Amino acid sequence: MAPEPAMSMFSTTAMDELFSVANQIRLMVRFEWALSGALESEGLAVSGAAAAVEPFLDAEFADIPALFAQAKESGNVAIPFVRQLTAAVRSRNEEAARTIHLGATSQDVLDTALVIQSREGLDLIFSGLDEVERPLLWQARVHAETILPGRTWLQDGPPTTLGLKIAGWVAALRRHRQRLEAARARALVLQFGGAVGTLAALGDKGTAVSAALAQRLSLPEPELPWHTHRDGLGEVAATLGLLVGTLGKIARDVSLLMQTEIAEVLEPAAEGRGGSSTMPHKRNPVASAAILACAMRVPGLVATMLAVMPQEHERGLGNWQAEWESYPEIFRLTAAALERTIEIAQGMELNPRRMLAHLEATGGLAMSEAVSAALAEHIGRDRAHELMQLAVRRALTEGRSLRDILLEMPDVRAHVGEAEIGRLLTPQNYLGSARQFLERVLGGSDGRR
Amino acid sequence: MAPEPAMSMFSTTAMDELFSVANQIRLMVRFEWALSGALESEGLAVSGAAAAVEPFLDAEFADIPALFAQAKESGNVAIPFVRQLTAAVRSRNEEAARTIHLGATSQDVLDTALVIQSREGLDLIFSGLDEVERPLLWQARVHAETILPGRTWLQDGPPTTLGLKIAGWVAALRRHRQRLEAARARALVLQFGGAVGTLAALGDKGTAVSAALAQRLSLPEPELPWHTHRDGLGEVAATLGLLVGTLGKIARDVSLLMQTEIAEVLEPAAEGRGGSSTMPHKRNPVASAAILACAMRVPGLVATMLAVMPQEHERGLGNWQAEWESYPEIFRLTAAALERTIEIAQGMELNPRRMLAHLEATGGLAMSEAVSAALAEHIGRDRAHELMQLAVRRALTEGRSLRDILLEMPDVRAHVGEAEIGRLLTPQNYLGSARQFLERVLGGSDGRR
Amino acid sequence: MAPEPAMSMFSTTAMDELFSVANQIRLMVRFEWALSGALESEGLAVSGAAAAVEPFLDAEFADIPALFAQAKESGNVAIPFVRQLTAAVRSRNEEAARTIHLGATSQDVLDTALVIQSREGLDLIFSGLDEVERPLLWQARVHAETILPGRTWLQDGPPTTLGLKIAGWVAALRRHRQRLEAARARALVLQFGGAVGTLAALGDKGTAVSAALAQRLSLPEPELPWHTHRDGLGEVAATLGLLVGTLGKIARDVSLLMQTEIAEVLEPAAEGRGGSSTMPHKRNPVASAAILACAMRVPGLVATMLAVMPQEHERGLGNWQAEWESYPEIFRLTAAALERTIEIAQGMELNPRRMLAHLEATGGLAMSEAVSAALAEHIGRDRAHELMQLAVRRALTEGRSLRDILLEMPDVRAHVGEAEIGRLLTPQNYLGSARQFLERVLGGSDGRR
Amino acid sequence: MAPEPAMSMFSTTAMDELFSVANQIRLMVRFEWALSGALESEGLAVSGAAAAVEPFLDAEFADIPALFAQAKESGNVAIPFVRQLTAAVRSRNEEAARTIHLGATSQDVLDTALVIQSREGLDLIFSGLDEVERPLLWQARVHAETILPGRTWLQDGPPTTLGLKIAGWVAALRRHRQRLEAARARALVLQFGGAVGTLAALGDKGTAVSAALAQRLSLPEPELPWHTHRDGLGEVAATLGLLVGTLGKIARDVSLLMQTEIAEVLEPAAEGRGGSSTMPHKRNPVASAAILACAMRVPGLVATMLAVMPQEHERGLGNWQAEWESYPEIFRLTAAALERTIEIAQGMELNPRRMLAHLEATGGLAMSEAVSAALAEHIGRDRAHELMQLAVRRALTEGRSLRDILLEMPDVRAHVGEAEIGRLLTPQNYLGSARQFLERVLGGSDGRR
Repeated sequence: MAPEPAMSMFSTTAMDELFSVANQIRLMVRFEWALSGALESEGLAVSGAAAAVEPFLDAEFADIPALFAQAKESGNVAIPFVRQLTAAVRSRNEEAARTIHLGATSQDVLDTALVIQSREGLDLIFSGLDEVERPLLWQARVHAETILPGRTWLQDGPPTTLGLKIAGWVAALRRHRQRLEAARARALVLQFGGAVGTLAALGDKGTAVSAALAQRLSLPEPELPWHTHRDGLGEVAATLGLLVGTLGKIARDVSLLMQTEIAEVLEPAAEGRGGSSTMPHKRNPVASAAILACAMRVPGLVATMLAVMPQEHERGLGNWQAEWESYPEIFRLTAAALERTIEIAQGMELNPRRMLAHLEATGGLAMSEAVSAALAEHIGRDRAHELMQLAVRRALTEGRSLRDILLEMPDVRAHVGEAEIGRLLTPQNYLGSARQFLERVLGGSDGRR
Repeated sequence: MAPEPAMSMFSTTAMDELFSVANQIRLMVRFEWALSGALESEGLAVSGAAAAVEPFLDAEFADIPALFAQAKESGNVAIPFVRQLTAAVRSRNEEAARTIHLGATSQDVLDTALVIQSREGLDLIFSGLDEVERPLLWQARVHAETILPGRTWLQDGPPTTLGLKIAGWVAALRRHRQRLEAARARALVLQFGGAVGTLAALGDKGTAVSAALAQRLSLPEPELPWHTHRDGLGEVAATLGLLVGTLGKIARDVSLLMQTEIAEVLEPAAEGRGGSSTMPHKRNPVASAAILACAMRVPGLVATMLAVMPQEHERGLGNWQAEWESYPEIFRLTAAALERTIEIAQGMELNPRRMLAHLEATGGLAMSEAVSAALAEHIGRDRAHELMQLAVRRALTEGRSLRDILLEMPDVRAHVGEAEIGRLLTPQNYLGSARQFLERVLGGSDGRR
Repeated sequence: MAPEPAMSMFSTTAMDELFSVANQIRLMVRFEWALSGALESEGLAVSGAAAAVEPFLDAEFADIPALFAQAKESGNVAIPFVRQLTAAVRSRNEEAARTIHLGATSQDVLDTALVIQSREGLDLIFSGLDEVERPLLWQARVHAETILPGRTWLQDGPPTTLGLKIAGWVAALRRHRQRLEAARARALVLQFGGAVGTLAALGDKGTAVSAALAQRLSLPEPELPWHTHRDGLGEVAATLGLLVGTLGKIARDVSLLMQTEIAEVLEPAAEGRGGSSTMPHKRNPVASAAILACAMRVPGLVATMLAVMPQEHERGLGNWQAEWESYPEIFRLTAAALERTIEIAQGMELNPRRMLAHLEATGGLAMSEAVSAALAEHIGRDRAHELMQLAVRRALTEGRSLRDILLEMPDVRAHVGEAEIGRLLTPQNYLGSARQFLERVLGGSDGRR
Repeated sequence: MAPEPAMSMFSTTAMDELFSVANQIRLMVRFEWALSGALESEGLAVSGAAAAVEPFLDAEFADIPALFAQAKESGNVAIPFVRQLTAAVRSRNEEAARTIHLGATSQDVLDTALVIQSREGLDLIFSGLDEVERPLLWQARVHAETILPGRTWLQDGPPTTLGLKIAGWVAALRRHRQRLEAARARALVLQFGGAVGTLAALGDKGTAVSAALAQRLSLPEPELPWHTHRDGLGEVAATLGLLVGTLGKIARDVSLLMQTEIAEVLEPAAEGRGGSSTMPHKRNPVASAAILACAMRVPGLVATMLAVMPQEHERGLGNWQAEWESYPEIFRLTAAALERTIEIAQGMELNPRRMLAHLEATGGLAMSEAVSAALAEHIGRDRAHELMQLAVRRALTEGRSLRDILLEMPDVRAHVGEAEIGRLLTPQNYLGSARQFLERVLGGSDGRR
């Protein structure tokens, strides 16, 4: 089946294909193929049962529109799918067809296919994280000394370094990788329990078949069937949600830095990129917008995944079904956000001159904390803060530089001299531990904060 | 373009088609056609400008995959769409092509197309509501006297009537219709503001073109362009969310009543419907499950619509884009939930004998409130309640009927005789105002509670 | 009982008091008092029954910690409340105590108290809306001609007027008022149904008592008891959510305009306001931050209100209880956001000179659309757009003004002369219908867009 | 300061106290005390600076209402708090007062106090988990052979064991413990970065002071300050959300099993527990309702925590503030849900006789899968399923037992004899691997599925 064309700005081709219906059906066949093999090895299916399913692994036999039409009646696609697969196999091997799906139930094949999709989806995410991290680390290293205003409350404050800012992004991304690896190991395991989780239809061979099935699918085996305990899938969903939150933070920083009046960072330019249908001069942060859109959509979907966890008894009513489109959507949105972050990481334009200019534009005001800190050594933090507020107010009211005001204030001059004031008002001298923090990240981190 | 096949259990074919990309593009052409006509009538486009667009109203010219590929660069589909449409028109009429999209900007064509989809989507919802309401009203009338346990905390209590229960559903659905009608009138209006909402590119003819455009599209005109004020779309989304909540309530009631041990109401049976891939005897509430799934998914999507309302200045960054797939999804889920509720309303099987049996099964316990109320007239509500708790406890502990216990209690007998106790313990005698409430709904309501 | 001190930045004293436990209990007494009166008038309670409750309307009798301790056991506060009230009344009037709560059940008193709180809460919101609208309208009028960059994608575009921008805020607020008025009328009505919604304990006098009760509480009477149909409360919650979304939009605009490098709008200054614990020069958008915080919290709460709508049968299990703290929180957050918006509306500092400077700073680039529109009349929208993109690119690359570039381009000069180019690049000449749109809002609106 | 009384059904006294304002202020003093000590050890504060703060560790000096009143102006409580603390210390030790808060900023003290609350909050959760797990494991062991209907779609299916059902709950709870432990280690670390995350005010001693501070607070030190990277707190929030989802699943199972018509499991009885204000016979699942209410409220709060992650630059605007009440609420709701689950785990009444009766009531229908599986060995799964559907339909239509029908069907009798049919229809014989799965959990698990 041809890959369905990606008709959304909020997915990637690879993730779309992975979570396409066609691929879901292929993975469901893979489950049934592995089950036939496991039954075979336990003497519950005829020899050659798995081999008889093999020709159908490409799922070309499937009549997908019919599956969906019937799913409305049967409640899920597994029931008509098993019927179609059985018919297909029967046409070649009557004996093998008899044990298709034996011992299993709908949720076994649906959940296990989803687990495989999730594992492969995380692999896509992991390699995307590599592609983001590499250029960012390089930029962090290059801009270890590039200074720009630290900004709090959307107001300029004392300087930080671009390197440190980017290192903060990288450190967070590394933590997400750790979380996703843990979630993958804990959550993404075989589901196989039969009608109510006892594997009763397999008599005393349930655990043996389960072990063989897991092995054939290269999936870890769980302690026990987990179908109505959705914490594993919830963990994957929530962890992707956390990752997208960080991607959104990067996009927010970039898009704010790209505002016309700031323009310290620009998204990569390209022919036709970020233009406007009306305004010929525009260069829009299109990647940031897409990332932020993903970051705004994922929380509601994660909330749905959490809200549907209280699933009834051995199979949920409505809450399970609510996951079917919500969970893949989280993967798609994460992949899209990651793809656009790679674009930014690889191609963003940085403008250190404007960064410096903005630090200097406030006539020393942003450096008031430096003077305050120096004064605090002599007169206490509290008193120093008050004195500086006075100085700042005068500078603003009189439209003069902070330096000139400070030189006139006897309470200040009593403790710091003119040269010292000059030194204090120089942003490059007020970076504290920025370099050391940066080095910790550059030094390779185990992701532990 | 052929309708995209509905590959989801959580939509309807009609709603899928309405919100399909192909239809979106058709509506965008309709906008541009109407705009050309409006420009023409104000002397801003050549005579015949609208007529030149007409052959393209079917949107067959559009290369949709290319649109989406370019949308990733340009930030939305409107920009490449305008390019494609202009090229198509130019091939026939160079002059008319010059004024395609003149004065408008991306959000004008995208938002207005969305408004038209929303209006038509609500029309689908309204006719769905008709189809639900009719059979429900009929059942409410038929079962005006059918009694079943009122249930609170999932525990059986004194009786209510099936008619009243269904009337409660209908009354809520009518309120939703009112809300949706109000939202339609208030929210679903033309968006036309140009680059920043001033229609500057049209000089002093902006409002005239706007009025002509609205008239050609049969849309109400707003007070002023509203692009970054998303309250109208939010209202539609939230109101659909409320409707789905009520549909979920109906599905919850039905699915609980369909439990094996209760079986008072069954979803309609059909060949292949509600079966299990493993359990041959199953008849599953598949429609209720689908409705509940919709009801669990919509709140997160509504939250997204609300969360993205603080859109920046004259066009949002990320928050607008976050709506693009979330908002249509709410229509799809509502339509699916409604379609499945129609199934239930039209075909549900009711089992009055089991309803009555459950009322009687508790040996009068469910009627304890009735006795308590009668006693209260003599000894006060508080004291009566205590006395009855004692009686109930004895009935449970001794495994005897409440009637027998009561007949032995002198404090009870002092106030109510044996015949009276019998009368009090008869569920049919304890229906209060159920009939009157029901009649109010049957009497046709203006939707006002 | 003394008002509980407001210990939250995300509420107001008035709303805190309205939704305080103490006030809830007072309103519950009011319900029981009115019920006693209604029973009395229908001959179901002794004469003087209501009068006997009157001394307790201040709820001073209530042992609130005991109520809560017992509520954990009984499932809600109504049960121990009725016990405490009955005991209090009995100490004075044994007869009257007997019929306290007669015919009612927990949800009747809890829901009706909530309805009264909601009505009074909306009154607080309505007067808050008045206080926001007045100064904003005044500013919109004053700044009808003040121009600033229209901003899309956080990039400067052609001009709009500050008046129009503010008018957009006002128009949205007026629509919210309309929605809230409709919700109030539809949703905020008496709940009175007894144990399972039939008023069975009142025999054939249910509807008469209900009507008398509604009248005594000055509440509209519903068509039928609605306890498990929560659409009314959901509508109020969602509509407040929409309002907060608009307040968030205003706060977002203000806080972006207050950024150090932009500084076109400042939140009101005050001693001690918006300072930093470390940076003496800071003036932070503290009101905007608080409003945005509210706007980020409300959507999740509205989602909860929608998600819990499918309540079981005649009383929900968990879903009703989930509303108890979520719903009042929405009122609190709305009130807080509104209070802070009033601060901004009344005291914001506007800096028209910086607005103009930013329009001019881009060396005419922001005006490129104006030139493009003028050219389009001669050579078509499409071709004009391309030409201007070329001009803009040259201006950016060569670091020259757009004017100089345009004067050199023969394709441009062929259609527009030097004077015309000057005129086109003057922002004040490119405001289109801004004034007309503004006048529609100033002219008093019926809230219809 | 006295503990604030718990006036909510949705918290616990211990969690309320931990997250009370009074305790927050105490932890903020602890931070400042530790900072003074760290500064002292690095020669940046006078000897005795920490000792001077020590008398104020109980926070009795704090004027909390004033803090909140000023917080509305200053934007957070840290600023007035530092002022109050400095004044208090100054009254005793002028020198020590000078360096209070030196090098730190508001988010350092607020975030670090929150981290300490979170760590202690998780300790409460961990011991709650112990209290739930112990009785559940005991019940799982006792009821290893107790059978009840497995239920899917709220319909009875073949049997499972109560032991296995409970083991599934326990296994999920163990996974949550693992997740919370990982989150604790990764996320709950010191925040100390000064105004913009560089510790500039401490010159070259930033990292040394940071290390000393972390040690004094017994907190791990992060790689770099993380204030605007909220993934750690988001992880804690989401992981609690997952835990509450599982608690909700337990409560849902229990409350469904407690329905009048099912009554297989009852919540513990107690005087005054679960009664109704009107219905004397009621025994309501009050604990389950409370747990479910928590499970319905937490997802919206987690969504808020995720949605606010894209925080601007070095301090967020609104998004940080949106966490302040949302994050503690998640702890409170989790604690409440856990407390009520302990109640259930310790005191639930189990009714194996009714469980068995329900299995038998369906006249063998629930066992149809067993017969189907046996037949499948002879005639294939597909054909066997069809045959059994036929048999089931006849049993239902003719109102006879499945056994009788099967004995009459030649296609069945050809493969299974009468005795075999009897054996197959005996639920105790159809438990598959239930025991083995159970033993894996009883055998002590490492939480790995």
